[in-house]
Amino acid sequence: MNNFKLLGGIKIALLFIFMVFAANFYAQNKFGIIIHGGAGTINKENMSPEKEEAYKSKLGEALLTGYQVLENGGSSLDAVEAAIKIMEDSPLFNAGRGAVFTAEGTIELDVSIMDGKTLSAGAAAGLKHVKNPILLARKIMENSPHVMLMGEGAEKFAEEQNLEIVDQEYFFTKERWDALQRVKENEKKSKEKHGTVGAVALDKNGNIAAGTSTGGMTNKQWGRVGDSPIIGAGTYADNNTCGVSGTGHGEYFIRLGIAKDVSALMEYKNYNLQQAAEEVINKLTRLGGTGGIIALDKNGNIAMPFNTSGMYRAYYISGSEPVIKIYKE
Amino acid sequence: MNNFKLLGGIKIALLFIFMVFAANFYAQNKFGIIIHGGAGTINKENMSPEKEEAYKSKLGEALLTGYQVLENGGSSLDAVEAAIKIMEDSPLFNAGRGAVFTAEGTIELDVSIMDGKTLSAGAAAGLKHVKNPILLARKIMENSPHVMLMGEGAEKFAEEQNLEIVDQEYFFTKERWDALQRVKENEKKSKEKHGTVGAVALDKNGNIAAGTSTGGMTNKQWGRVGDSPIIGAGTYADNNTCGVSGTGHGEYFIRLGIAKDVSALMEYKNYNLQQAAEEVINKLTRLGGTGGIIALDKNGNIAMPFNTSGMYRAYYISGSEPVIKIYKE
Repeated sequence: MNNFKLLGGIKIALLFIFMVFAANFYAQNKFGIIIHGGAGTINKENMSPEKEEAYKSKLGEALLTGYQVLENGGSSLDAVEAAIKIMEDSPLFNAGRGAVFTAEGTIELDVSIMDGKTLSAGAAAGLKHVKNPILLARKIMENSPHVMLMGEGAEKFAEEQNLEIVDQEYFFTKERWDALQRVKENEKKSKEKHGTVGAVALDKNGNIAAGTSTGGMTNKQWGRVGDSPIIGAGTYADNNTCGVSGTGHGEYFIRLGIAKDVSALMEYKNYNLQQAAEEVINKLTRLGGTGGIIALDKNGNIAMPFNTSGMYRAYYISGSEPVIKIYKE
Repeated sequence: MNNFKLLGGIKIALLFIFMVFAANFYAQNKFGIIIHGGAGTINKENMSPEKEEAYKSKLGEALLTGYQVLENGGSSLDAVEAAIKIMEDSPLFNAGRGAVFTAEGTIELDVSIMDGKTLSAGAAAGLKHVKNPILLARKIMENSPHVMLMGEGAEKFAEEQNLEIVDQEYFFTKERWDALQRVKENEKKSKEKHGTVGAVALDKNGNIAAGTSTGGMTNKQWGRVGDSPIIGAGTYADNNTCGVSGTGHGEYFIRLGIAKDVSALMEYKNYNLQQAAEEVINKLTRLGGTGGIIALDKNGNIAMPFNTSGMYRAYYISGSEPVIKIYKE
């Protein structure tokens, strides 16, 4: 064998090693995002084609915006924040602008975000004037020694962090106001209490983040706090397992610790993501609660079980096409 | 063998079966209570004999009061409530009267309770005028459709439930005020932030309940909410596994979902109570947090690990003597 042949052989071997490495690298570095815009009584017969189109369009915008952050090498935290901000800004969802009203006719927002790399988290409850709660959750996580702030104190911190402060009027939508009047009239709360938004993302570095933002429950009283700002209930992320964001009857989500339970079932019982996600929704059903979750694991697998008639949801994982869904299938 | 001998044999056999059944019944129906008055930098050299005696005496009073509820056939919820109320009323602990001050010089109390039989729970954050937060947590659980209330809304509900409302002055103690000044001067927060109280009880019917009550962290800002009112973080109870109450650096307890993690390790990994409790405190240590937990399982086993120099703690399980401890052993 002469030196040229030897060199050629080495080159081919190196190329082969590189290809295996690249394939492996690619497989290990799937990235993507999954979002929800709330679960509840969402039936095709009650939905006009225009309304359905509006929801799909806004979900798509949030999804693509988050995905582009990841594609450009951005962090999962940035992707979650970007996707949720778009849904907060849209009056279609029960978060930020377009949030539901309390019994007193005010709007009180709850929010949380979690970083699966460090298990750091930020959350706030009872916000009345912070335009984008998800931005505040991130600031609490990164610029305060605390995880959770509430009410006026939280808003004072938001001001110190130079976040945009708005009047309550900013959040007002006629549709939610009418919903409050309907609920007050006939106490048909169950139809009106969902609509939370959330996102879970996995970035190119394998970091998972999750976030959830909501106006809570129509006609809520006494400073009610739901699951959305509760780390472990409405939101959880751990790079070793998965990220989760929930939407539904928050009291049940708190009692069952829904979001972290998905992670615990994966870590302690070796369930895969789908098994774990379905198991917690089964627990929710058994306890009498309604709602759904979105979940994304470290390998880019997704799950999005719910026990209501519909859940606004979408996902976009690298290597496959984006998917947007509303009804049960 | 004549009939008399046969009857005698049957009698002895029946007596034996009855004794086995009774012993088994007794073993299955252990009852008892475990309480804590906070974990932190608690060293014998810094503690006067009088102060030590005062703590032990008050812990003993809370313990015996809770135990008597159980002995008289009362529920674990009643026992937890009674024990915590005594510690809230005592200025020795950072809960109710004697709670620590916020940066603004106010007192803001957090609380939760959980029923392991139904997984029902009640919690409140940011209370300024409710004399006994633990009574409010119970009312929220039993008389509202919600799990968690905050701030003025929670206090409005407390008034509607005819709970005793007090001025902020009621909670004031000179010791805590001086602590705030010390912390503001030298930012030595770590020494001052513990002192939460909690209790877990198992009643004669096998029902487990857990509760936690606190003033939070000295010099806390911006409406900070700790782990004590967070179901799954500071408090958890499930008849199938155990009840848990935590005390320590709340942010870490929230991020790790400490209280429910003990239950999850027992349910999903078949850990016994001691293994599960120690594992979560190991996680706390690895993440850089300090504190401790008390835990009681459905068979009357107890665990009370902590990674600080001391934790005020006591337990009294049927069939054995009451135990009160302060320092590490």
